[in-house]
Amino acid sequence: MGLPMIKKMAAAHLAALSLDPTMEAPLYRQLYFGVRDAILSGRLSPGQRLPATRVLARDLDVSRNTVVTAFDQLFAEGYIEGRTGAGTFVSATLPEELLHARAVGLPQISAGRRRGPSKRGAYLASVGGRAPSRPRAFSPGLPELAAFPFDDWGRLLARRWRRPPREFLVGNDPAGYRPLREAISAHLGVARAVRCDADQIIVVSGSQQALDLTARVLIDPGDEVWMEEPGYPGMRGALLASGAALVAVPVDGEGLSVASGRRRGPAARLACVSPSHQYPLGITMSLSRRLELLEWARTADAFILEDDYDSEYRYAGRPLSALQGLDEDGRVIYVGSLSKVMFPSLRMGFMVVPRDLIDAFRAVRMLVDTHPSSVAQAALADFIGEGHLGAHIRRMRALYAERQAVLVQAIDTALAAWLRVTPEDAGMHLLADLPAEADDVALSARARAASIEVPPLSAYYQEPSERRGFLFGYAGVAPREIETGVRQLAAVFADA
Amino acid sequence: MGLPMIKKMAAAHLAALSLDPTMEAPLYRQLYFGVRDAILSGRLSPGQRLPATRVLARDLDVSRNTVVTAFDQLFAEGYIEGRTGAGTFVSATLPEELLHARAVGLPQISAGRRRGPSKRGAYLASVGGRAPSRPRAFSPGLPELAAFPFDDWGRLLARRWRRPPREFLVGNDPAGYRPLREAISAHLGVARAVRCDADQIIVVSGSQQALDLTARVLIDPGDEVWMEEPGYPGMRGALLASGAALVAVPVDGEGLSVASGRRRGPAARLACVSPSHQYPLGITMSLSRRLELLEWARTADAFILEDDYDSEYRYAGRPLSALQGLDEDGRVIYVGSLSKVMFPSLRMGFMVVPRDLIDAFRAVRMLVDTHPSSVAQAALADFIGEGHLGAHIRRMRALYAERQAVLVQAIDTALAAWLRVTPEDAGMHLLADLPAEADDVALSARARAASIEVPPLSAYYQEPSERRGFLFGYAGVAPREIETGVRQLAAVFADA
Repeated sequence: MGLPMIKKMAAAHLAALSLDPTMEAPLYRQLYFGVRDAILSGRLSPGQRLPATRVLARDLDVSRNTVVTAFDQLFAEGYIEGRTGAGTFVSATLPEELLHARAVGLPQISAGRRRGPSKRGAYLASVGGRAPSRPRAFSPGLPELAAFPFDDWGRLLARRWRRPPREFLVGNDPAGYRPLREAISAHLGVARAVRCDADQIIVVSGSQQALDLTARVLIDPGDEVWMEEPGYPGMRGALLASGAALVAVPVDGEGLSVASGRRRGPAARLACVSPSHQYPLGITMSLSRRLELLEWARTADAFILEDDYDSEYRYAGRPLSALQGLDEDGRVIYVGSLSKVMFPSLRMGFMVVPRDLIDAFRAVRMLVDTHPSSVAQAALADFIGEGHLGAHIRRMRALYAERQAVLVQAIDTALAAWLRVTPEDAGMHLLADLPAEADDVALSARARAASIEVPPLSAYYQEPSERRGFLFGYAGVAPREIETGVRQLAAVFADA
Repeated sequence: MGLPMIKKMAAAHLAALSLDPTMEAPLYRQLYFGVRDAILSGRLSPGQRLPATRVLARDLDVSRNTVVTAFDQLFAEGYIEGRTGAGTFVSATLPEELLHARAVGLPQISAGRRRGPSKRGAYLASVGGRAPSRPRAFSPGLPELAAFPFDDWGRLLARRWRRPPREFLVGNDPAGYRPLREAISAHLGVARAVRCDADQIIVVSGSQQALDLTARVLIDPGDEVWMEEPGYPGMRGALLASGAALVAVPVDGEGLSVASGRRRGPAARLACVSPSHQYPLGITMSLSRRLELLEWARTADAFILEDDYDSEYRYAGRPLSALQGLDEDGRVIYVGSLSKVMFPSLRMGFMVVPRDLIDAFRAVRMLVDTHPSSVAQAALADFIGEGHLGAHIRRMRALYAERQAVLVQAIDTALAAWLRVTPEDAGMHLLADLPAEADDVALSARARAASIEVPPLSAYYQEPSERRGFLFGYAGVAPREIETGVRQLAAVFADA
């Protein structure tokens, strides 16, 4: 096959390219890809001569400039080369054996290979779980979104971003924006009796990151960790990911049973608790149990992770103070989240770490994601400092108390034959008990099929349990939806 | 000691509390803390009777309501208890041995204990490094901040947050906000010849999180990983944290030497490269080297992490296409960051993962921090989709090209005796070579003492190297500061 023939074929290949001026990619990019694919697939061979840009422009009915621009990039990337006075050629130096094996189009994945995640990656993926389903009646942890003061929030964001100071744009503190940490520290002192200063605050992207950081800083693979039984699955995932040996410690009427923990996990290095409003049971840990837990940590040389879950919404009495404020020995890592009191996609939380762990937490945070984004931080400092957060929480407290009453009434009216529910002093969800012989998992699945979300209590246990029930989130559900949802659930029960 | 005496002492203790109406904490909180501290420190004993609220209010000169409110909370938390008709008492059920050991004030940390991070935590903290110093001339990776269109950015944020749609507030997709992922995927296709769809995009908080996620999904402890030598220290930290056995693979004039990698790390599971503009050397990986690396990954059943560092700023020729776009076998994890083209505290980046790894990455992301914050995501989708990002990059490209020229000229004028620098086609920093006998680490420390930041090249090597030099970031430094900085550096050299 002589040179003229090859040349003709190259011209034919390229003239057959279909360029589409209506596509988003500019014509020169389309041409670039067309020629590159022809080279990589072997339709154009190393050393083969390309048509002159003028000729190709005519054949493709595009401007010569389009062809020149595409060729420039192919030159720059080494696909083609020019020889002075001789024209343009497919590069002779491409490793030839690679070129013929290639298919054109989206990447193909070769079959029959190991590939995929590492052993640890597969394990992490298995404990990581799936994203939650679309929130609806009665997803726990969903706040009322329509009542959030977005006008104020948008205004604060815009104000902060109009003329941002330079140090705010660089913002390289792994613990977060200093004024926000000061606002959080002041808020926690007043609202939660947490004792700390801004140096101990680390701004995180929600409580999940706080759990992940804590597990990475404090746990070695195989270390025993006390987990509330039943407890929060997200916490379990972060701890398993760190290689912890989880010890299920029962929750009784006063909170996590320290005596039981001492028996079941005598060597534990960390206890994870939600003392304000235990998830999912809703128990508030008693004072003597709090002191007993702190005493255990001191004598066992262990730490306590306090997830101050749902502390903001207390309908009778005042919010109880945080465990952290009772700690005289630097044993408590306190974790709070703003995503539930503001809106879930905010992903903003904070931790308070003992003074002698600050450096380690900061250094590990550098590895994980360097430092938190500034975009929301300054506006959030204003939102807290100017009293918007406190006002929003007070408004929601009244709203949620009312919704809880509506839910209790609705269940007593329509579901009393199956469910027993008692009002609670705090929180955003209620736990309704089913008879012990009921299959809450199966019933929950039926409810989900009818678009009602009532997570089964037994899913929160690590070990077999007698107790059966459903969680009903009510905070983010309007009273009419609460009543409709309960009636739909009654229909599910009647059919079961 | 009879009852009247105890009663009198309790009254005296409490009447001596100093409440300060000018403090931020309300009076009832100050009183609450005062009584609580007196109980916890043992100054008030279990069973001891408290003065009547009326009497205490008079003694403290506060309203009776303030005292009632404080006592209500102490009741609620179990510190005090009432006996009908008999008054108010310190709870008898507090574990007494705890109470006497307590000091009042900020937590004290007991000495002589193990405490502190776990073995892994200490290791992670040691590889995590410290936060970078305040950016200034010539910090690498610092963009020009004054030129960013904050008016547009603030307007887009405010617009998105005025009436946010519900699905945007909940935003529970671990890969990020769908419209942003579509905007990124379209942008990458046109600008970087990346081949992907929005399903493969994971929005992350910058490239560090992408590295951490990749290491956790793909690496088992002990797995060999190729690292460019010299290379980016942040990458090293994330890989070491995952337990990887790092293999230093030299970078030659065409980029990472695949042949050397095959010899030094024959069992490697991952190769980490920055082909667009190698950090810190500035080499662009040649096409044939790219194809050779992909062929290695295919035959060795390994993955490639492509950190598409600095690809946006190319001053001569067009930006080279991404390695990812050449991959026909799903071997490349592509990582890009917006923090350098917009502003560092944005903390926003993205990764493109092969189709069969999407589920694993999503699940592990759930463990790490659930999902990215929505606050910047929608505005960012608009910023990209409406062409602001592209326009900003084009403006900065012209500005940075000019600054590079100023820097080369300034070094040639004032530092030619010590430093040799050549203009580069791309990037935000230049590498200036020192004679091999120079001590770049010591010189850099002297420069820092004179407020000039020029990281020493030898700090980027894992193994001993002959090559000595400095990195000069110029993108974020105004021409006059460039000239001043270079003159100050010349003075440091003259003194050395």
